[in-house]
Amino acid sequence: MKAFLNGAIVEKADKMIPLEDRGLTFGDGLFEVLRVKDGHIFFFEDHLSRMRNSAEFFGIPFPYSRDEIKDRARELIALNGINDGELYIELTRGVDQNREHKYPPKDTPPTFFMLAIPLRDIDPMNWKSGAIVFSFPDLRHGLCEHKTINLLPNVLAKNYAYQHGGYEALMYREDLKGKYVTEGGSSNYFFVSGNIVITPEIDNLLPGITRSKVIERLKKNGVQVIERRIYHEELKKVDEVFLVSTVSMVMPVRMIDGKNFKAPGQVTKKAMLLYQKLMEEDKGQH
Amino acid sequence: MKAFLNGAIVEKADKMIPLEDRGLTFGDGLFEVLRVKDGHIFFFEDHLSRMRNSAEFFGIPFPYSRDEIKDRARELIALNGINDGELYIELTRGVDQNREHKYPPKDTPPTFFMLAIPLRDIDPMNWKSGAIVFSFPDLRHGLCEHKTINLLPNVLAKNYAYQHGGYEALMYREDLKGKYVTEGGSSNYFFVSGNIVITPEIDNLLPGITRSKVIERLKKNGVQVIERRIYHEELKKVDEVFLVSTVSMVMPVRMIDGKNFKAPGQVTKKAMLLYQKLMEEDKGQH
Repeated sequence: MKAFLNGAIVEKADKMIPLEDRGLTFGDGLFEVLRVKDGHIFFFEDHLSRMRNSAEFFGIPFPYSRDEIKDRARELIALNGINDGELYIELTRGVDQNREHKYPPKDTPPTFFMLAIPLRDIDPMNWKSGAIVFSFPDLRHGLCEHKTINLLPNVLAKNYAYQHGGYEALMYREDLKGKYVTEGGSSNYFFVSGNIVITPEIDNLLPGITRSKVIERLKKNGVQVIERRIYHEELKKVDEVFLVSTVSMVMPVRMIDGKNFKAPGQVTKKAMLLYQKLMEEDKGQH
Repeated sequence: MKAFLNGAIVEKADKMIPLEDRGLTFGDGLFEVLRVKDGHIFFFEDHLSRMRNSAEFFGIPFPYSRDEIKDRARELIALNGINDGELYIELTRGVDQNREHKYPPKDTPPTFFMLAIPLRDIDPMNWKSGAIVFSFPDLRHGLCEHKTINLLPNVLAKNYAYQHGGYEALMYREDLKGKYVTEGGSSNYFFVSGNIVITPEIDNLLPGITRSKVIERLKKNGVQVIERRIYHEELKKVDEVFLVSTVSMVMPVRMIDGKNFKAPGQVTKKAMLLYQKLMEEDKGQH
């Protein structure tokens, strides 16, 4: 298997990155996961824009143009023989021999790498009859609107769900009114109440690409979507739940903390179809 | 320069770690920074205990005994010719070819490495006449009682201070009563009001080794130390401030956000002397 690292496609090996890469010592980096199928990289522009914007926010130089990245990514996908898979992109602030918080000199090259790997194994029953979800405290930092590699709280949340037989976590924070839900370890959530779809507003949570696509398509198709804080207490009155991500796409949720939901319900089915259609449209574009 | 990596002392090189190390992709790891002088590693047991406890908390296997680590660290320090320096230790959950949040199989070896590097450059005037500090929001996660490599919020805080001509940040959170201070990007803080020393209690902040040593010694020497939440508003009434860390040791603070403090004041001087004495005692032990 090959990888793209700092300008070249190379054989993946056990020794690739120095010990003092700031990604490894400070979590000083960003990532993206993109869906790949039949040589197509889905929503490439959206993912790249998000990464570039966050790189600018953190002052990490962005080393290649979109076209360069797209070309090398396609090459890598072909070389690794990935038909149905994931493109992983990571960007870090590069190497600092001193292991100091202080930003390295401006001319320090960032570290940029890409992996093209087979699609992770997901039981198709999750889409058919819905995923099981467990709530877990949102222990994340205040930088959740950026896709940073500071993922240890996400790792804890997802593994809590796995250890209890679930597919994903539903994280929650607390305000004066009580617990409110934020997002999954690697998903955004939608809640359906009657004909209205509610999803947490972007308030220190990730502006997911799939999330924004689903909102846009639902609205275009006459479904009311409200972005607002949703309290855990409200889950009692919810009819349907679904989660979305690049890899899970639109996935019905049949159970949260033991409470059952229709899965997939009518609105969820609609979202699934709309997203499927959108992926086909995206695939039709170059 | 050499490094210790996964069982062996090796030449430091540009290629050491695979792209899929969970430290690099998820921040799934821990670290320690230890002070080294004349072949002595200060407070080795304390640092190692903290790392082992956190490794247990996160379910990361701890691969070597304290004696093995101490022996190899000393060897590394000697080989790199470090007289006055830092020993950096990092432990990650190891390599996962799939780049998935899910914990890798139990028998996956963790990644463990050590660097022995010269002491970072600190202007001695900081100890003589006090450091300049700027407050910055505490954007960290909920795992701050562990020394994880999810340090991006710390990096932002410290660089904010550097960019404004400061030595360190003083991070703050907010509760219903207002802003309260937590810690620095890599330091704990002490505030002196009259003869009483106040330091933030361990409430999602790092139980620093230097912090606990200083508290213990001050108390033993008849100084009252109170651990409690301290509001930014209270800084107005504070006489002296000092910050502590492995590298900064006990350092007076002469200015926070433009407000001046006696630096070093009487209590700070006492803490500096007591810590100096303690380091000498520690050096006397094997």
